[in-house]
Amino acid sequence: MISKLIDVAMGRTLADIIIKDGTVFDVFNHTFIKADVVISNGKIVALGSGYSAKETIDATDKYVIPSFIDAHVHIESSLLTPSEYAKIVIPKGVTTVIADPHEITNVLGEKGISYMFDSAKGVPLDVEYMLPSCVPCTPFEHSGSVIDANLTRELLSKYNFLGLAEMMNFVGVINNDSDVIEKLSTGAFVDGHAPLLTANELCAYICGGIQTDHECSTSGEALEKISRGMNILVREGTGAKNIQQLIKAVTPYNLNRFAFCTDDKHIADIVADGTILHCIKKAISCGLSLEDALTMATINPAKIYNLKGKGAIAPNYVADLIVCDKSLDSLHLVLKDGAIVSKDGVPSFNGKSISIQEVSNTVRVKKVSPQDFQLEFTKGMPVIETMKDSLITRKVYPSSADGLSICAVVERHKATGNIGKAFIKNIDIKDGAIAQTIGHDSHNITVLGDNPIDMSIAVDSLGSNGGICIVHNGKVISYMELEVAGLMSNKPYLEVLAMDKDIVEKIKVISKDGSSSILMLLSFLSLVVIPEIKLNDRGLFDVIEWKYM
Amino acid sequence: MISKLIDVAMGRTLADIIIKDGTVFDVFNHTFIKADVVISNGKIVALGSGYSAKETIDATDKYVIPSFIDAHVHIESSLLTPSEYAKIVIPKGVTTVIADPHEITNVLGEKGISYMFDSAKGVPLDVEYMLPSCVPCTPFEHSGSVIDANLTRELLSKYNFLGLAEMMNFVGVINNDSDVIEKLSTGAFVDGHAPLLTANELCAYICGGIQTDHECSTSGEALEKISRGMNILVREGTGAKNIQQLIKAVTPYNLNRFAFCTDDKHIADIVADGTILHCIKKAISCGLSLEDALTMATINPAKIYNLKGKGAIAPNYVADLIVCDKSLDSLHLVLKDGAIVSKDGVPSFNGKSISIQEVSNTVRVKKVSPQDFQLEFTKGMPVIETMKDSLITRKVYPSSADGLSICAVVERHKATGNIGKAFIKNIDIKDGAIAQTIGHDSHNITVLGDNPIDMSIAVDSLGSNGGICIVHNGKVISYMELEVAGLMSNKPYLEVLAMDKDIVEKIKVISKDGSSSILMLLSFLSLVVIPEIKLNDRGLFDVIEWKYM
Repeated sequence: MISKLIDVAMGRTLADIIIKDGTVFDVFNHTFIKADVVISNGKIVALGSGYSAKETIDATDKYVIPSFIDAHVHIESSLLTPSEYAKIVIPKGVTTVIADPHEITNVLGEKGISYMFDSAKGVPLDVEYMLPSCVPCTPFEHSGSVIDANLTRELLSKYNFLGLAEMMNFVGVINNDSDVIEKLSTGAFVDGHAPLLTANELCAYICGGIQTDHECSTSGEALEKISRGMNILVREGTGAKNIQQLIKAVTPYNLNRFAFCTDDKHIADIVADGTILHCIKKAISCGLSLEDALTMATINPAKIYNLKGKGAIAPNYVADLIVCDKSLDSLHLVLKDGAIVSKDGVPSFNGKSISIQEVSNTVRVKKVSPQDFQLEFTKGMPVIETMKDSLITRKVYPSSADGLSICAVVERHKATGNIGKAFIKNIDIKDGAIAQTIGHDSHNITVLGDNPIDMSIAVDSLGSNGGICIVHNGKVISYMELEVAGLMSNKPYLEVLAMDKDIVEKIKVISKDGSSSILMLLSFLSLVVIPEIKLNDRGLFDVIEWKYM
Repeated sequence: MISKLIDVAMGRTLADIIIKDGTVFDVFNHTFIKADVVISNGKIVALGSGYSAKETIDATDKYVIPSFIDAHVHIESSLLTPSEYAKIVIPKGVTTVIADPHEITNVLGEKGISYMFDSAKGVPLDVEYMLPSCVPCTPFEHSGSVIDANLTRELLSKYNFLGLAEMMNFVGVINNDSDVIEKLSTGAFVDGHAPLLTANELCAYICGGIQTDHECSTSGEALEKISRGMNILVREGTGAKNIQQLIKAVTPYNLNRFAFCTDDKHIADIVADGTILHCIKKAISCGLSLEDALTMATINPAKIYNLKGKGAIAPNYVADLIVCDKSLDSLHLVLKDGAIVSKDGVPSFNGKSISIQEVSNTVRVKKVSPQDFQLEFTKGMPVIETMKDSLITRKVYPSSADGLSICAVVERHKATGNIGKAFIKNIDIKDGAIAQTIGHDSHNITVLGDNPIDMSIAVDSLGSNGGICIVHNGKVISYMELEVAGLMSNKPYLEVLAMDKDIVEKIKVISKDGSSSILMLLSFLSLVVIPEIKLNDRGLFDVIEWKYM
């Protein structure tokens, strides 16, 4: 193999492909250069001129840039299987994702992990999985699965993981929880998850060996974490949008500590704007240079995660690259391992359909009735206030129930009958309810409505596979089945997109501000590691005080 | 261990040391910050305030900076054993070196490697060895040892090497020499050595998996190599001095591709100025910022060589650091693994004396006589011209022998009697000769003089251990024995320094421009991988044409 590459670079052997006359992004010198890119055996062998190849791609007036790397994503949040997910991100320039199968693992444990590895095979997207470090994400959860330190060690050696995924249990880290410390002692690379953590607590957390954070929301927070040695994954997903704030922290000198990620992004948003491509454009619109943005999308994540031979257009690098117009509006070609995998936005590969028997029919709920969702408002009771474009919630004490909706979380793994309830502010629902089997991170059923009858019908209608259900005046008006763990559809992405469109339209029937972001907000209402107040099947949880209220 | 660090960071357990009120270099944000540095169990656990410790170091008005890493060095060139070398570099702020035991390995093979590992044990200098990739350095050599691909594989698994050292045989790489390719196929990290290599040949060389280069002599050469994915080790040693030229290539964006190294530096120069400390000061005097220079001396080499936990002052990093005044003129304290190893320039540790039986008495020469060194000048014959501060030589054709000296290379490993001879320009010798058993890379005897009698006496006087010998008018006027492989003295560094001083003084007796740089120049006269014309025991070699003349 080495000999072959050298022969091609020396011009002794014909190359497979030449991308000719393009303007190539030199990630190392942070500039664009004129050069032909010579490819052989899936690798870039030379930048230069005067070469011959079996195939020539004309890149006159076009950019040739390394394809993108998403530094942290939960594929489940797209509602697609990994195989179908590849078909919507590759045409938008992504060829590698660092994926955390946290959601399906909370539902199904190792069965979910195994499915995710299998589904990603056979598509030209490099899915580098991190092993979820927090299943359940806190000791306060009723999830479908538990992965302790012993099982962590076993799974790390059994599967080809890149490391341990987001260590959300920062309280466990800084208080030396023995199971957490044992996980950190495996020597694996560990991703962080430490919103607002600062000063001595931040130092203690980093002493656990944690190397990244994707939860920064201010530039000051990012700068402190960088100073203490962390890499910052700048997130722009459907729910959480941090680019505008965080790029204020970027300097020419700390640029190499930043990478883009999406964390959680919905199918419709991906199809519309892409994932990392959207991060790049958003960052540029907020004032970052094109070169800086491309750096954060390519070589930086490759270096942070030690992905050898990725993220650059240089000899001996993998031929993962994009030929695009200079506005980045049209990605003409995407190449993976030297093969064209997308042309003018259309994927040129097929996924492989695999059995979902082991990962479907996962919903087990004790029969509900309207009275399960009754909740009386009393003055002085804590209420969850949601905030635009953020996963952070606030604890408020409104003086009346005006404009509040009811939300509830129904345990769905072991049919325990546990239901937590609370009022929620800033999501308006009228004459209806929405229920879904997506609810980070334990993925119990989250339901939102203005009356107990519709809420009960919505939960009931999710069936044994689960999904998303909208009820209006006693009738189901839209339903998307999510056969895989109650989290992902097993259908082709175009069908899922159509179902999703219907869901979003029908949300408007019961909510005047209705949009897909309501679904994303619902998904995170029960995530007790994000401040300030959350709800799960055991009731309201005060994240700051780290206890149930 | 992790638990202990976290306890200290949280303030629950007393720290070992606090470095208080210093100005700390934040390598990640490229700035200085005010913070106490908290150390426990040899690691930095926190930057902050309000901590307590068993020992407090006052750093008011002082810098606290990560200690330095020399990215590429041949310890042998200092004339000291690794154990003694540690005593002169640690007080100058170096606590880690990436060392290539190329010289001793060319003389002694595995015996030399084993000795170098042993000698470095027991001193607080982290010596990370690279396995020499080119022993002999070209097929044209008569060295004392041969390491082929099979032995390379064996040694890589037997010893704890960081990778393969400088791949000097670029001709072998780009022409797919099978033994070279097999070495490159081991998957090890490979250092490069590719002076003036450019364009397609450079790309082919990099396809061999070669990741660094320390032979750049112009900024343009550095920029091209960076563009093609290489890391540039900016060298400032006794013979080769590249900082002034190469820092012109440094930008805020490619800064992370540069590190400092010394390659070959003589004991006297190290004691006077240090190694990497000198690089930093020289670079600053040439216009680089202090922050850039410190970055190239610390975090950059750590990242290039994947030295985990090194190169920064941040939680979970190894407590290798320097407390110094803000001029960098006085390194008050050097800490290694959290322990003070040097105070105000004096090492606070002892080396360990080990047996040199396996590595001494290495010189085997066929008896020489004056007529072996007779050489007649004829017009049109090629002559070696040396250049100031460079290892590069030029092929010239002077019209007379005026100002020329005679040089010769005498095979010394197998007593074959091979002697190569040539005239040399720009080194003046009068009524005397210098001979030494140091001659890169095969380390045959190099001798320089203006008359055959003194040359013969000088070679003869080197003895079975070898060393450096100066003869004037038929008498030995100075001699330094180099018991270890004919390359290094086994004596304490102060004694070696005194002997070296005597040698340098006596050089002036036979050469009006005499200085230690004559010794370094002599050492490289036979290194046939550096352009343009070299001499070894088989005669004059044209490096450009890659053949004997």
